[in-house]
Amino acid sequence: MEHLNIGKHISGQFNAELEAIRNNVMAMGGLVEQQLTDALDALQRSDSAEAAKIIERDRRVNSMEVNIDEECTRIIAKRQPTASDLRLVLAISKAVTELERIGDSAERIARLAQQQDPAGFRNMLSALDSMGRHAQRMLHDVLDAFARMDVDAAMRIHEEDVKLDQAYEGVVRQLMTFMMEDPRSIPNVLDVLWAVRALERVGDRCKNICEQIIYYVKGKDVRHLERSQVQDLLK
Amino acid sequence: MEHLNIGKHISGQFNAELEAIRNNVMAMGGLVEQQLTDALDALQRSDSAEAAKIIERDRRVNSMEVNIDEECTRIIAKRQPTASDLRLVLAISKAVTELERIGDSAERIARLAQQQDPAGFRNMLSALDSMGRHAQRMLHDVLDAFARMDVDAAMRIHEEDVKLDQAYEGVVRQLMTFMMEDPRSIPNVLDVLWAVRALERVGDRCKNICEQIIYYVKGKDVRHLERSQVQDLLK
Repeated sequence: MEHLNIGKHISGQFNAELEAIRNNVMAMGGLVEQQLTDALDALQRSDSAEAAKIIERDRRVNSMEVNIDEECTRIIAKRQPTASDLRLVLAISKAVTELERIGDSAERIARLAQQQDPAGFRNMLSALDSMGRHAQRMLHDVLDAFARMDVDAAMRIHEEDVKLDQAYEGVVRQLMTFMMEDPRSIPNVLDVLWAVRALERVGDRCKNICEQIIYYVKGKDVRHLERSQVQDLLK
Repeated sequence: MEHLNIGKHISGQFNAELEAIRNNVMAMGGLVEQQLTDALDALQRSDSAEAAKIIERDRRVNSMEVNIDEECTRIIAKRQPTASDLRLVLAISKAVTELERIGDSAERIARLAQQQDPAGFRNMLSALDSMGRHAQRMLHDVLDAFARMDVDAAMRIHEEDVKLDQAYEGVVRQLMTFMMEDPRSIPNVLDVLWAVRALERVGDRCKNICEQIIYYVKGKDVRHLERSQVQDLLK
């Protein structure tokens, strides 16, 4: 991972701690990314054994969140960081919460892959697949941007979420048609709908991580702002 | 609001700051509670004018989140709190994020109340109403527990979420029956389904706030633990 210019601290130990925690976030991000990829694969292949492994591995994601957050608290208490160091620690604490919830989305998709009756929703999977790949790419890019604290990339990914939302609307309309044409399919379609919804949420969470990158680099909290307001702030 | 024993700081000013921020959280909680109550009322009365006001007021909820969080960061940087003071500030920062998202759930319900065709889902509202009242009660109780940092109450509310989840499953089954009996109702039922889902999420968020109360009082991070593990930790 590229080194950030996280300031020249009197304490080399403090620098090492900040580097270690950033490495832990990237390791957690890598695991979550793998979970999402594996879950989408397991779904396409109706691989319920793989799905079970993904569900089990979500515990590891959860404990990474708790451990990293604890380390953030420890650093604040011990090092009493201010300015950009404090922003880094707080941004990390918020980002890992988002990563943990992306892990939950992967778990939800894995649960769909575990369904007894894959034939019941096989014909809906292509719609889900392209949306899944879109969400995967957003996650990959946001992790990359977080590693480099790249605010321009964060802005681009932030905007990307609009497209994922549009894809989501399209898939929901398609699923609605399935249900109306064959009401017996409704329970199966609803299961798929929850997975699609989980993918849409992955986009929202990536967007939230982008906001933490912007917060760290620019010192500005852009949550809840309109896109044009964010752009103005960053000029 | 009852005074907490938030320690005797050398700086009376620091105490005043902690009190002020807790008052702000309670004010935000009060607004969010009102938003949820008003949204459920607007839905029952198909009052789209009231719904529009609720949607507009969500901006105030959002800016309260940002302001309180900024104040938390300022206190950490300036006062360099440790131990329970630091836990209080971090618990507040996490709790306001949950409150903001409960506000989003209220907004979603208000959007349902704005629908052009209330007759299309009038017959589904009774199922939603009892679940809504359940979620409302949970929110009310958790805000009360947060004001008093009452860990026993937090444990009770934490368990209450199981019941809300059961109610949710029941409502989803009922909505599925509506769809299967009358496929033309599917688009309307899906709108109701999203609102029901939003209520279920209110319970999750209340549970998360309970975890922050436990974290502050007991110094233990109980996120992702099984209920029995939480109970063991608190013995």
